[in-house]
Parts: sequence; structure tokens; C-alpha cells
Amino acid sequence: MTTHVLVVGTGLIGTSLGIALSRKGFRVSLSDPSPTAARLARDLGAGQLANGQPGGQDQQPAAPSASDTHDAPDVVVVAAPPDVAGAVVAEQLRRWPNAVVTDVASVKGAIAQAVERAGGDLGRYVGSHPMAGRERSGTMAARADLFEGRAWVVVPTTATRPDAIQAVLGIATAVGSVVTVMAADEHDAAVAVVSHVPQVAASLVASRLRDLSDPAVSLAGQGLRDVTRIAASDPRLWTQILAGNAAAVRDVLRELAADLAGVITALDALDGVDAPGALEVVGRAIGDGNAGHARIPGKHGAAPTAYAVVVVVVPDTPGALGHLLTDMGAAGVNLEDLHLEHGLGQPFGLAEVSVLPSAAEHLLTALDERGWRVHD
Amino acid sequence: MTTHVLVVGTGLIGTSLGIALSRKGFRVSLSDPSPTAARLARDLGAGQLANGQPGGQDQQPAAPSASDTHDAPDVVVVAAPPDVAGAVVAEQLRRWPNAVVTDVASVKGAIAQAVERAGGDLGRYVGSHPMAGRERSGTMAARADLFEGRAWVVVPTTATRPDAIQAVLGIATAVGSVVTVMAADEHDAAVAVVSHVPQVAASLVASRLRDLSDPAVSLAGQGLRDVTRIAASDPRLWTQILAGNAAAVRDVLRELAADLAGVITALDALDGVDAPGALEVVGRAIGDGNAGHARIPGKHGAAPTAYAVVVVVVPDTPGALGHLLTDMGAAGVNLEDLHLEHGLGQPFGLAEVSVLPSAAEHLLTALDERGWRVHD
Repeated sequence: MTTHVLVVGTGLIGTSLGIALSRKGFRVSLSDPSPTAARLARDLGAGQLANGQPGGQDQQPAAPSASDTHDAPDVVVVAAPPDVAGAVVAEQLRRWPNAVVTDVASVKGAIAQAVERAGGDLGRYVGSHPMAGRERSGTMAARADLFEGRAWVVVPTTATRPDAIQAVLGIATAVGSVVTVMAADEHDAAVAVVSHVPQVAASLVASRLRDLSDPAVSLAGQGLRDVTRIAASDPRLWTQILAGNAAAVRDVLRELAADLAGVITALDALDGVDAPGALEVVGRAIGDGNAGHARIPGKHGAAPTAYAVVVVVVPDTPGALGHLLTDMGAAGVNLEDLHLEHGLGQPFGLAEVSVLPSAAEHLLTALDERGWRVHD
Repeated sequence: MTTHVLVVGTGLIGTSLGIALSRKGFRVSLSDPSPTAARLARDLGAGQLANGQPGGQDQQPAAPSASDTHDAPDVVVVAAPPDVAGAVVAEQLRRWPNAVVTDVASVKGAIAQAVERAGGDLGRYVGSHPMAGRERSGTMAARADLFEGRAWVVVPTTATRPDAIQAVLGIATAVGSVVTVMAADEHDAAVAVVSHVPQVAASLVASRLRDLSDPAVSLAGQGLRDVTRIAASDPRLWTQILAGNAAAVRDVLRELAADLAGVITALDALDGVDAPGALEVVGRAIGDGNAGHARIPGKHGAAPTAYAVVVVVVPDTPGALGHLLTDMGAAGVNLEDLHLEHGLGQPFGLAEVSVLPSAAEHLLTALDERGWRVHD
């Protein structure tokens, strides 16, 4: 029997999920407070408008009815903003007494608490966090493959029934996600470290640029660009995310603030005459960063790999980088990562190409033979 | 008449400069406390061994002599570590009474003060900061094009003679750098914001990963990777850099710490019941980051440009990305930036391709026609 999934909220995540599930043969109904957003999602192939959704087949208002029960969803996915997700989940649990309900907010403890406070049936509630955001949001940014290859964290409560977990695992797997099951506090502590605190740090570093002179800003290099890339993120969404995970983010930021205070004290001492131990504090801060950085998994969730970096001068003309990578492919070498460094006022850039260490020497030779200016 | 440049210190910067200047027709002599490093630099094409350099033509010790004066350099480039650069500059000013001397350390005020304290002739001293580091260091990492298209900040003292400034400008321009002239305090304040504070922030964020569980670390996405990429930098070098610019870095870190304390207080309030104003503090932190991020110059030092992002699914096979970029080139569209997002456990990745907004629609159509799975 075909699984019927009701998607409540047709923004980036809800619409992308609707498209992906529809393509996999699920029956998807769409609901959104905005009739325009729901219709747009339908037109993008995300599913049919739900009963009660303005513009839907029955053209009825949203009150439950006998026909609703007849067409009840098996799974409801609440893709609403984090600050209302808990209330919407509780409402859907009441409205569909046999359905499994999940949400996709990037914080999980606060949502489960809100569901419980609102008297929702926790046995049929499962938290989800598909780690599939983009810098862009909204229905129009939806993509069928948004979840492919990305992590999807499934977060049961202690009361969640096993069949409810299975239903959500089925959806996550169907859209190509790699599923991890975690408790809510474990999830919230993890994303505080790997996502929320990096966002705060990037924003605070970028803030310092506001009052800098133009010549000073012009000294910006790739390091600054990388550190501050996510500082361009949406303040409204991030305020909700950080508020929703306030305790966990605060705890990690306090650790960071303590380390920062130590570095400031050490630099203050180094600006004076005598500074026993100060250099060690600074060196340890950088060294501890080395150790933490080394824990970040490599490509495909595998163990961290130290790639060899080959640097190639690439003319700034259409297709030049493509020719380079085609030549790499012809040499049988796979690209593991790529950073581009654009020259200031120069008609070329440097491509820093990461490859497996065993492939580096062969690649250097092959590219050199094809006339590229390369450096290891 | 050929300019004779003496490079003192044949690590990454000194050797790269020697190679680049030699190729431009300068006469380059090489000197290093390590005879091995100096000979390696010579073998890489960075120049000849200097008189007095062990292994050099005269095989004499380093004491000045009549022959030294006969073969005096016009410009001495001190490419020594930041903590000894000032002393070496003063020594070279004394040894070559007609030469212009510059250094390449990434801090400038502390070096000029050290030169003055050591009684060096400030009229012939010019500070330099070629912004051309790499994650790797050492003679073997040298590249002839290290300076091409990168910023080179020239930092005269108030006593520096105009002809000394001109001599250093000539070298920076010869190796393809884009020259900016700044006062030492202006330079040090600028690099504190665009380089040194981002390094500290990246290291402190990465430090938090040290004690995380493996499942938690596995949730790391591209945001964390970008923020912490430079956390892999060398602790010894960065301890010297941060100590050398201690006051300026401390001042910026204090601003950052004050903002951070505000965010922590706000999150603390949000974890409780009532939190008037707390959401605004969090939202402003992210919004200020937006404003700061928008000031980072675009490619080629031009004004910031909001590029359009096109997302393409790329199979993880040798050459696939190359074919994509070749197809982009065939469509006449130039790549402005590129981010790769590797799928966890999936044999493909997502390429986020930045192009000029006016080119996005044409590119989407062209790639779609060639069979790529694309999304805007």
C-alpha cells in the first residue's frame, strides 16, 4: 500500500521533501498557511493540495470532517519554523489520531517539550533533523535532491513507539539521506558544537569588518572568506535556531569565551615586558584547534584524510578550470576538494586541488606534461 | 644596471621571492642560517649562494670584508621568522651601509620598533607584508608565482627615504603583487581584523570538537569545514604572529568577547521564562555579521558582488567535475566561485557554482540541455 505523507509547511525543506517523496512513489499532500506557497509547491511537483487547504480539491475550510479521516495521512511531516513547530506537531497529532508525526527543525529538545506541554501523544511523535539547509530559503529554492547523501538525524522521545521510528526512517532513507538515531539532548549538544557555535563565531568575526577602512578590508584573503562565509545567513531563521537551542549553545559559547579570555590575557601580557607562560597559552589555543580540526570527518563520512594539495595557475577565462579538471580526469585522478584563490587585479586564479596523497606525484607529472603551471 | 637582491632566510617566502626575482632578471644572493636550506633554495632556482654563506663560492665565514662591499646588494630582503626579523634587519642595515633593507613579516609595528631599538638606520628600512602565505611552510613549498596577484603591503617608517620606498615597490611590482602603502599601526590593525582574529576564532571553534563523540562529529557540514579550515595552521608560526601583533589583536578580541558575552547573556535569558530584548541581541549579532560580511571585496579586488548560485549534482568519478566546468566554458559562462559538498556515504557530490547573476539563467538552460541535474 502506498504511504500517504502530509507535508505541513511548503518552504525549502517541505517542498524539497514533497518533490523527492513524490518521485519515489509516495502519495504526498501539501498544506501551508500561505495558499500561494502551497500552490507553488504543487506546481513544482511536490504533491497534491491537502483537503482543507485553500485551493485544494474540496475547497473546504480546515476543520476536521469525516472525509478527512477517510483520507488520513500515515505520516505527517511538520516543516514549520522552529518557533512554532512544537505547537503544529501537537495540533497534527490531535487531528490525525493514527498518524506518525515528525518535524524537521534543527533543534530537538525544545520541540519535544513543546509537544508534551501541548498534550501531544509522544508515542506517535518522532523528531527529525535533516541536515540539508541552504543559504537560500523558500519554496522556490526547493530541490528534489536536497537530502541525497546528507545526514538525517532521527530523534525519538523515550515514549516514541518503535513503529513510529520505522515510519520516519523509511522516509529519510527513501530520499537518500544517511540516517543517524540520537537522543534529543545528544543531538542538541552536537549541533551546538558543529553548527550553531560556528555560526555565532563567524558572525562575530564578520561584525568586526563593519567599521574597517576600505584599504584595510582590501587585505582580506581566503582565510577570512572561509571563516565568514556563513555570516551571510538569515538573521531571522538563526535567531529562532539559537533561541531554540539556547542552553546547549550557551554552554559551548561559555567554554569558547573562557578560552578567549585566556588568549586576551596572554596577549595583554605579551604587549608588556615580561610574560611568563603567555606564549604557551597562545600556542596551546592554536594547537588545540589543530587537534579539533583533525577530528572533522573526510569525504563520504570516512575517517579524516590528510589530502595532498596541488596548486595550479588557472587563467581567468571561461572553461579554463574545466579544462584543468578534465585533464585531471584524463589522468585518472579524482578531485577530493578544491579551493579557488582569485588574484587581486590579475587575470588568473590559483586552484588548490586536494587529492589522495598517493595520487599527487602522478598528477603533478601529468598536468606538467599538459602545459599547466603546477606546484606541490 | 641589474638590481642585486640579497635574500636572508630561504623558507617559503624567501625562496619563492628568489625564484620569482631571478626569473625577472634580478641578480639574487641567498643566505640562511641553515646551509641545507640555502643550498636547496639555490637548487630550486632562487639564486646564488651569498658571499659568506657556507657552501658559497668564497667559502668564507660571514664576517664583512672588502670583497663584501665590492659585491654589496642594492636591496636586502629579510625573510626571517617574526620574532627575530627586527634584529636581523638591524644587522643587515649595519652590514650594508648603502642598501635598502626590507622584511616580510606579517606584523610591522613591532619589527620597526625592534630595528629602531637596535640602532638601525630607519631611512633605509621599509617594512613589507606580502600577503602570500600557504598552509605549508618551508623551502620545498616555494613557488615562483606565490606573489602573483596577491596584495603586498609596503610599510615605510616616518624616517624612510623616498628612494628606499621606490626600491621595495620595484621588487613587489616585479613579482606581480598588487601594492598598497600603509602606516605600521594601520597595517597591524587591519591584519588583526582580517587575518589574526579569524585565526583565533577558527582555532577556538575547532577546539570544541576535541571531546565530541564520533556520531556528533559526523554531523559536521560544509559550514563547520569552512569556519575551521585555517584551524589546521602551524601553532609555532601563529604564536609568533599573534605575539608580534599582541596589542592590536587583543583590542579586536576584546570587542569580540564583549559581543560574545552579550549573546551568552541573551541565550541564558532565553533558556528561562521571560527574556525581554534577548531575541533582539541574538538577531543583531547575526545581522551585524551580514553587514560585515558584505564588505569583503569580490574577486579581483572589485566591489562585492552578489553572485547567483547554481547547484549541480556531480558524480564522484574522475573527470566528472571537469566535464561540468568544460560544459560551462562551452556555454561561455565564467566561474566566479565554487563550493563542493560531498555526500555522506553517497557516490556523488553537489557543486555550488557561483556565476554573475546575468549568466545564471543561460547557464541553467545550457547545463540542462547537456544532461546535468541542475538547480538554481
